[in-house]
Parts: sequence; structure tokens; C-alpha cells
Amino acid sequence: MTPTTTHELRAELRRLLSEGQDSAVVDLLEGLHSADVAEIAQELEIPEVLAMLQLLPAERWTDILVYFDDELQSEILENFTGKEIAEVVLENIDSDDAADLMADLSEEKKREVLQNIEDVEYAKDLADLLTHAEGTAGALMATEMVQVNENWTVSRCVREMRRQAEEVEVVHAVYVVDDHDILLGSLSLKKLLTTGARTPIADVYDRSVRSVTSTTDEVEVARIMKKYDLFVVPVVDDMGRLLGRITIDDIVDVIQDEADSNYQLMSGLSDEVEAGDGLFEMTRARLPWLMVGLVGGILTSTVVGRNEGELALLPQLAFFMPLIGAMGGNVGVQSSAIVVQGLANSNMPGTLWSRLSRELGVGLLNGLLCALAILAYSWAVGHGLLFAVAVGVSLLSVIIFASLFGTAVPWALNHYGIDPALATGPFITTTNDILGLSIYFAIANALLG
Amino acid sequence: MTPTTTHELRAELRRLLSEGQDSAVVDLLEGLHSADVAEIAQELEIPEVLAMLQLLPAERWTDILVYFDDELQSEILENFTGKEIAEVVLENIDSDDAADLMADLSEEKKREVLQNIEDVEYAKDLADLLTHAEGTAGALMATEMVQVNENWTVSRCVREMRRQAEEVEVVHAVYVVDDHDILLGSLSLKKLLTTGARTPIADVYDRSVRSVTSTTDEVEVARIMKKYDLFVVPVVDDMGRLLGRITIDDIVDVIQDEADSNYQLMSGLSDEVEAGDGLFEMTRARLPWLMVGLVGGILTSTVVGRNEGELALLPQLAFFMPLIGAMGGNVGVQSSAIVVQGLANSNMPGTLWSRLSRELGVGLLNGLLCALAILAYSWAVGHGLLFAVAVGVSLLSVIIFASLFGTAVPWALNHYGIDPALATGPFITTTNDILGLSIYFAIANALLG
Repeated sequence: MTPTTTHELRAELRRLLSEGQDSAVVDLLEGLHSADVAEIAQELEIPEVLAMLQLLPAERWTDILVYFDDELQSEILENFTGKEIAEVVLENIDSDDAADLMADLSEEKKREVLQNIEDVEYAKDLADLLTHAEGTAGALMATEMVQVNENWTVSRCVREMRRQAEEVEVVHAVYVVDDHDILLGSLSLKKLLTTGARTPIADVYDRSVRSVTSTTDEVEVARIMKKYDLFVVPVVDDMGRLLGRITIDDIVDVIQDEADSNYQLMSGLSDEVEAGDGLFEMTRARLPWLMVGLVGGILTSTVVGRNEGELALLPQLAFFMPLIGAMGGNVGVQSSAIVVQGLANSNMPGTLWSRLSRELGVGLLNGLLCALAILAYSWAVGHGLLFAVAVGVSLLSVIIFASLFGTAVPWALNHYGIDPALATGPFITTTNDILGLSIYFAIANALLG
Repeated sequence: MTPTTTHELRAELRRLLSEGQDSAVVDLLEGLHSADVAEIAQELEIPEVLAMLQLLPAERWTDILVYFDDELQSEILENFTGKEIAEVVLENIDSDDAADLMADLSEEKKREVLQNIEDVEYAKDLADLLTHAEGTAGALMATEMVQVNENWTVSRCVREMRRQAEEVEVVHAVYVVDDHDILLGSLSLKKLLTTGARTPIADVYDRSVRSVTSTTDEVEVARIMKKYDLFVVPVVDDMGRLLGRITIDDIVDVIQDEADSNYQLMSGLSDEVEAGDGLFEMTRARLPWLMVGLVGGILTSTVVGRNEGELALLPQLAFFMPLIGAMGGNVGVQSSAIVVQGLANSNMPGTLWSRLSRELGVGLLNGLLCALAILAYSWAVGHGLLFAVAVGVSLLSVIIFASLFGTAVPWALNHYGIDPALATGPFITTTNDILGLSIYFAIANALLG
């Protein structure tokens, strides 16, 4: 039986490695894409991964290395000297991947690698790339690209492209610069294919190229590329000089990471947690928010405790405590999520006040409908009209309050430079529990006390 | 003062349109990208949008139309005859955008459009595109691409590319097919630039091209393109014949939509809701889940009601009700979110049973820590040891239960072809509230009753 699933392939690979069947390992990996090999290797032990990589030609195993996650990459690279990394690993990959690989190395190792790169220009490029702060366009870009001078002709341009293409794996775009490397525009391959050889580049290039600066936040780069449907965007410095380019495949990762991070904050998971993680990683990712919930629960218990007397007189009050808390939590999360998504998509029209007044409307409408429903129910099951009114009015108040609170909190967090998605998780639910129950008891006190 | 923000530009545009200053409108829009114009137009009234589009050349306003959201696109297209759509709109856009635009038209209008397309081959292509089910690779692909025959030479290939490039806006990839249009591989521009003119294509093309079939789910296409870092992927039919290609910019939208949809389900929002939506759209998106929460709350109230006697004897039991409910909800959402994300990223190692046993471990560990904390707290504030133990044991049980339940529910939904993300919203919180409180009262009954 030929192994086909990742799981089967991993078991087979493990067996072959342990038995030292080197040529069978090579045969097994032969037909697989590097991304698939990386997926298989991701769950192996480090010595197994090293043994596997050693059997493959340098070009192949560096290609596989690029698909490993950051953690595995560092663990593997620890086993190589700076000289080996410079001469074997970096020879075979693009500068953005190279910078990514190197970012997690120690400062000492980084220096060692850079000193061992033969091509001094490339070493400089790489050193430059490493200076850009994580999460900026500079950290995301690669320096491999085809650039031509505005004063060239189409035929010189094609000759130069042929030369540069030796180094550049895929031609995403051709950028036109002046003598000072200032980005002027771009040239489509279509134009290049359909224009006479003697035509000056200056006559045919497109001047409307959209660029980002190296300090632009990666989320903003993603927004721009999505909005304008760009495949590749050039990166310039503050002077307008062309530094590199970012391709949309890197942006896909940014979008996915951003979405994952918002999702995890909402679900009360901290850090990057994956389904495959072990018991302790899992606990570490989950416990902090549970502790927040626990502290919130304790505070709630004191709110209830302070109203013990009322509860003793009217035990039915306890019946609707969970409902009030849950509805407040639900409404709060809804409101917060709308703000967080609006901010993430830069689609947040109006001011905080116009936003709050709209939420007030939504809260009133939803609140009235829910309040009438619960009033009717509790009256119908025989709780008495005044009690039913108290529950209904409480629910209405809690829904309106949660709408406003859920809107204002992420807005305020964002205003002070804190991730607004923090406001969608257990934090908002817990706070709404506490404040919701306080409102409930206050209204019950006023109406029934 | 020159208007610069979208908001200012919209106000200015509105003023100029109402005053009939046509040339000023054209000047205002001149320097703007079509995506920016679309963003401005998105909040205008339909007659305003129509008036604006009429002032622009056909090429320009069709480009703007492509950036509108589906709803606005249909509303605008309703004002055109099938003939106008065929002759003006479709002339200027790619086939995938054309199929998108047409998808929302009535069947009658679709037929009218197709009958008015002069190029019969293109009409056939478009009719084919319209047959693909939404959410499949076929519905996402465009038919514009450069394809060459394996028997050609490099020079014939370049000649053909020049000819085809007249129709194809951007050359993403060159596909190699045999005489029956069966996809054989791809040809990189680099190879084309660096190979002698007489070389046969068969000698230089890359045979390892990865393709998808037209019925492949779009989420699977996204996964494949992300995993293998593809910019463009060819789409074939079941015979392997080349039908079209999907570029990564379309996949970016798929990824974003999928993430947004999971996010909205978790936050208890139905439908697509945006920060800019009006009061009634907002209410419609939010009320359904609130009703789920309300019904859940009513069920919870009956659980509490059935334990009225116990509550009367031990009023402190009420103090910790919100805590038990909230913690169950938090843990349940954490567990579900991990499963949903794992399924979305196709990163879900192991079987349901191995998953559940791991969750049991996480639940035990988290549960014990939280239970000890609450036991210590409630004992310290003087609730009595037995009561403190009852609260602690309840919390432990609820956390373990919620971990397992939160894992099993999305798994089961997915197994039966239902979106597992449904399990992360108010549904899981509400159910955990009900079951959590039942567990709480049962344990309290057993230990304290």
C-alpha cells in the first residue's frame, strides 16, 4: 500500500529514517511539493528533520525550510554555523524569506551570517531588510525585482530584463526609476510586448503607480492592496527611492494572521494557539482569560451578595439573573464586533457620537422587542405583572447599556492605540455581567422594593 | 480648501451634482482611482450615482462599477437594457467580473445580455461561466489567459503571446496545452526570456503545474493557493481540459469573507452586517441571535425555578450562579473556536476521540486551577468549607463538561455538513448556561442537600 495522507506519509518517513533506508527516503520525498514535505516534517522530532534534510540537495531542503513555521526554522538553523547558513541556505532563497529566517537568529549569529555572504551588495540589502521593524512594509518586502531607467529604450529594457531575470525568479512587475533610483512608474509586460523596440521607456510607462513607504503598517499595506486589487506594490523610502516590492502572497498571510488574531481575542484565547498544540501550550493560551472571567465572576457574586435581602424576599429574582447576564453579554459582543470589524476594514463612517446614537436606536428597538417578549412570558407563567414589568424594564435597560458600552469600549481602546479586539472577548461579557446584574437589582429595588 | 477625505469628497461631489456642474464633477473624479470613486459613490443615492456615471467615458465608469458592492451593482444595472450592458459594460471588463455582474441579473435579462454580445465565442464563455455553482472554482475563474501549444517553438509562442496580449490585460502565467486543450504544464516568463527562439516549448515547460477542477470549493482553492504560495492557479474540467485561471486577488476576498463570516457567527450577528448599515438592517442582523439567547434564558430560568427550594435554604447558591454560567460559556467558546479554526485551516490532527481526550486533559488542568481558586475564595469570605467545596467541584465539572461539549458540537456540525462556526456563537454560551447551572444545582444538592 502506498502511503497517501500526510499522516501515513509521516509514519512511513519515520520508519524509513529509523531504519536508515536513505535512498527510500529520497524516493518518498521525490514527488512531493516542498510545502507538503514541510507539513509532514512539522510534527517530526528535530533529529529526524535534520536527518531527512541531510539526504536532500541544498536547493531542495532550503526550499522546504522556508515552509516550516518560525519555531521549527529556528530550531533547525541552530544546528548550522553562520557560514553554512550564508553559503547554503541564503544562496537558494529570496531576500524576504532570507530576512524572515534570519530575524529569529541571535544577534551574534546574524553578524556571523552577514560576514560570510560573498556578495557584499546582497549582504548590505539583507542587513537593511533586518533593520525594518516587524509589522511594517519594510519587513515584508523583498528586494528582488526588475527595475529599468526611464531613459532606456524598449529594446535595452528587454535586454536588461533578460539579464536581471537570471536572478529574479518570477517577474511580477517592471519598475521605472530615474537616475537617482526615484520610483517614477511601472511598465506592463503587455506594453513591452506590443511596443516597437526603439521607443523610449519614458513614452510608454504608466505614471500612476501606487507605492507604500517602508514604515507603512502591514495591515495598511493589506488594505491598500485589497482595495486597489494589486498583485504587487513597490516600497519606497521617504525620498521616494525604490527599495523593494511586496507581493500579494505575503499579504494573504497578513490578512489571515489579523483575522486569526481577532478571532482568538474574541474567543478568549491568548497567543497563537493551534489545534495540534500540547496540553501545556493549550492551558497557557486559555487560562489567562479564564482567570479574568473568574475575577469577574467573583465580583458578580459580591453584587448578588449585596442584594441577598431582596433575593430572600423575592426568590424569583434569581430565576432571571442568568438571562439578564447572558443577554447583556450577547448584545455587548455584537456591538463590539461591529466596531472591531469596521475598524479592521477601515469602514467606520461617522463619529463616536453618531455611532452611539445609532446604537441607541438599535438597542431601543432590539431591547423593546426582547423586553416585551420576556414581560409577556414571565407574566404568563404567573410571576405577577409588576414583577414581569421589572424584568422587562431591566432587560431593556441592560440591552441599551450593553449596546452603548460595547460600542464605546473598542472605540476608546483603538483611540489609545490598544487593539480594539480586546473588547470583544471575555472582558466585555464579564463586565456586562456585573453591570447588567447591578442594573437588574437596582430596577427591581425601585419597582418592587 | 480642496476636499481630501472620502467624506469631504462625497459632500463636494453631491453639491456639484445637484448644481449640475458637470465639468467640475469630471475634474473632481479625474485624479481618483476607480476604487476610491466607488467608495465615495457607495453612500450616494442611486440617481446621483447614475448622474455621475453618465458624465464619464464608458471605459472609466465600467471600471468603477466593478468596485461597487453586489447590491449597488444590481441597482445600477437595472437602469440599463441588456443591449447596453452587452455593448458597453461587458466590453470593458474581464470575464470573471462580467460573470459576477451578471450573476445577480434576472434570467430574462441575462439572456438578453448574452444575445446582444457580438463575439459569439465570448458569449459562450460567459454562458459557461454562469453555469458554475457559487462558491466553486468555476464561479471564481476568468477565461482570459495566455495558452500555447506544446508543439510550438519559443518564437512562435512569443508571437502568439503578443497577439493574445492584446486581449489579456495582465499576463499572469503562460499555460501549455496539447491539441485537445488538455493542460500539460506552465511556462515561466523567465524561461521564455532566456531560451533560444527555435527551442520547442515541449523542451522547456514546467510539467509540475498544480491545477484545480471547476467544481472545487473556493475555500479549498484558497487553502491550496495559500499552502503552495501560488499567484494564479489553472482551472480544468474533469477531462483535464484548461477552462480558465483564478488569481490570488480573488482568493484574498474568499479568505476575508470566510474570516468575516466566522467572526460574525461567533459574535451572534447573522447576515452580512457592516458598521455603516441602517437601523433596520442592524436590527435584522442582530435580533435572531438575541431571540436564541432569550429562549435560552427562559429555559435557564426554569432550571433555577425548579431549584427554588434549595435556593431558599441556601441563598448563597445564587451568588455563584453567574460565575458558573459565565465560566461554562467562556470555556465552551474557547474549545469550539479551536476546532473551528483548525477545520478552517485544515489543521486538525487526530480523531474526535484523541481530540476529546486532549480537551479532557486541558479541562482538568484549567478546571482544577480555577476550582481551587474559587474554593479558596469562597471559604475565605466565610461561606463554610462544604459550601466552598460544592462551588469548586461544580466549577471543575462545568469546565470539563464545557470543554468536551464545545469540542464535540462543532465537530458534529462539520460532520453533517453544517458550518461548525455556528457552534461558537450564542448557541454554545446559552446551552452551557443551562447545562452548567443544572450541574451546579445537582452537585449542590448532592453535597449540601
